[in-house]
Amino acid sequence: MDRRSFIKKAGLGAGGIAAGSALAAPAIAQGTKDMVIVSTWPRDFPGLGIPAQRLAARIAELTEGRINVQYFAAGERVGAFDSFDEVASGNAQAYIGADYYWKGKHPGWAAFTAVPFGLTFTEMDAWIKFGGGQELWDELAGEFGLKNFAMGNTGVQMGGWFNKEIETADDLKGLKMRIPGQGGDVMAKLGASPVSLPGGQIYENLVSGAIDATEWVGPFNDYFMKFYEAAKYYYFPGMHEPGAQLAMGINKAWWDTLDATDQAIIQAACNEENSLTMAETNANNGVYLNRLINEHGVELREFNDEIYDAFGEAAQEVLEEAMDHSPMAKKIFESFINARKDIGSWMAISDVAYSNKRNRVLGIPS
Amino acid sequence: MDRRSFIKKAGLGAGGIAAGSALAAPAIAQGTKDMVIVSTWPRDFPGLGIPAQRLAARIAELTEGRINVQYFAAGERVGAFDSFDEVASGNAQAYIGADYYWKGKHPGWAAFTAVPFGLTFTEMDAWIKFGGGQELWDELAGEFGLKNFAMGNTGVQMGGWFNKEIETADDLKGLKMRIPGQGGDVMAKLGASPVSLPGGQIYENLVSGAIDATEWVGPFNDYFMKFYEAAKYYYFPGMHEPGAQLAMGINKAWWDTLDATDQAIIQAACNEENSLTMAETNANNGVYLNRLINEHGVELREFNDEIYDAFGEAAQEVLEEAMDHSPMAKKIFESFINARKDIGSWMAISDVAYSNKRNRVLGIPS
Repeated sequence: MDRRSFIKKAGLGAGGIAAGSALAAPAIAQGTKDMVIVSTWPRDFPGLGIPAQRLAARIAELTEGRINVQYFAAGERVGAFDSFDEVASGNAQAYIGADYYWKGKHPGWAAFTAVPFGLTFTEMDAWIKFGGGQELWDELAGEFGLKNFAMGNTGVQMGGWFNKEIETADDLKGLKMRIPGQGGDVMAKLGASPVSLPGGQIYENLVSGAIDATEWVGPFNDYFMKFYEAAKYYYFPGMHEPGAQLAMGINKAWWDTLDATDQAIIQAACNEENSLTMAETNANNGVYLNRLINEHGVELREFNDEIYDAFGEAAQEVLEEAMDHSPMAKKIFESFINARKDIGSWMAISDVAYSNKRNRVLGIPS
Repeated sequence: MDRRSFIKKAGLGAGGIAAGSALAAPAIAQGTKDMVIVSTWPRDFPGLGIPAQRLAARIAELTEGRINVQYFAAGERVGAFDSFDEVASGNAQAYIGADYYWKGKHPGWAAFTAVPFGLTFTEMDAWIKFGGGQELWDELAGEFGLKNFAMGNTGVQMGGWFNKEIETADDLKGLKMRIPGQGGDVMAKLGASPVSLPGGQIYENLVSGAIDATEWVGPFNDYFMKFYEAAKYYYFPGMHEPGAQLAMGINKAWWDTLDATDQAIIQAACNEENSLTMAETNANNGVYLNRLINEHGVELREFNDEIYDAFGEAAQEVLEEAMDHSPMAKKIFESFINARKDIGSWMAISDVAYSNKRNRVLGIPS
């Protein structure tokens, strides 16, 4: 997933809310606050745009229009790239996106979306809400005049689509792969040539052979991209985005003008949508994976241990480079790494151990 | 965890909301609705009572007192056992508890909390919200005049505290173990003698040797129970409650009198608290597990494959017996079993596969 992916990508569904239309008539015109939300995703985009629209509508609903929400998908008011500046400057009140889009402004932003070998959804939620993550997010966002909340998650992404089997780390050398961000940096360290392409251009580049491989999100999202026509090996699990956190970034000066109830409603709506997005994605991924395999002959493959060892070594180098940026980056990633160890160790003997044992006994395939 | 566990258990913390006190002064007295909430857990009980109190306060906060919430912990208005009838009869407007407490009324209720070899938190959330679970829950609850929502989760519970190592299924024979519900039924099929005891009586029975073993919840909850003084082997992962769903059950006739905004706020507050409870538990379990091991010499042990095979066979029998109850029970558990296969297969190649690989590479212990 990458911000550039979404700019030219047409929405996959119809309907939804018209650009910029108010989402609820204010019950009492007096005392209403305008909240212009700009999103980094196209209108009606499954798993990303739809959750963003649902959150915007929910804030209007729960406040009975006291907060007069106007929602603009990517390109409807500003380009996806420009959402951050639009909100930081006060031209709009909030953006919905993934904060690693802004890692050029500060590498610490990546920790609040996803980094290679990072946290899963459940671990991320524990770190953000009860492990010190939100406080660090507030500190970083505060430097840019923002207040940010978690509002969705894509879960563990698939490792990508390849036109050959990847059996040793050497098979990655020279591979032209569409993979953005720190995941791309990991691939580069292993001799691949990562490229960034907007979502709408991946398919044509894969068919023409201009690229050999690509990652996108997961079965529910990837199904509609038809990558299987050009690359039939679909690898799991992705190391690059193990629980991509989606976020609402709010102009802090505007946030501070809201009363405590409206602040609480926005926070509650974000918390609600955060797990709804994950639940919707998890409910759909299995169904769409089966379709890919059964309808389109996709070959599911698992990255082997040798390749994961190579990914792990490279990911550690990439993480250390991000930490070297500044004391703030170091502080954020140290907290993140501690959460990975402490919360990760608990998850290892609870959800993970249980799932392994249950699935073996019941024959649930992996 | 069991309803009887909580009746005599004193609250572990101080403070909190006084029994039955209104949680917010109504902004406008006219048009307020009284909402009496009775909980099945003691006041200030970590991981259970505290989330229930937080939800009650949140509903008052988000509605600015339009819903005039009065919260009663177990025993403050009615006993934990009587919460269901208190709400179904209309004497109170909502209960907060775990719906498997009511499986004597209908075995289908168990599916909406936990059954042995059932769904993890993430899987449960996908099934309830986007896999047909809520619709079945509505149908079952509707038969009792209720409307129910998910409002918390304890995650994968620990397998329990034992005073000897459990190396073969034969080691379970004759074992007197405190383990309620379907988990106890599984143990009985393997020759153990399951007993139910209130939480406040487990410790004395374990110390006196009246029981040989007990389960409770997880490290965060178990730490305060001091079981380690009498049983030092702490087994993972529990097969009996892999993601115990906590619930708010609302009197349906009262629910139908609420306007759409207040209904939406209650739903949003439940959805928010559902993942907050899980995040708080996951953030604390690792910390408290380390304390148990390092401060109290607890020996962490993993159930082996032979024992899990035996658990699995017995759990299948217990599940089939529950399904035989009625067409409604069959319909609920068939949906549950399909979710376990479909969503479980996706989780197996995403969160589970990723966590296994990451943890091996990084040396995160299990």
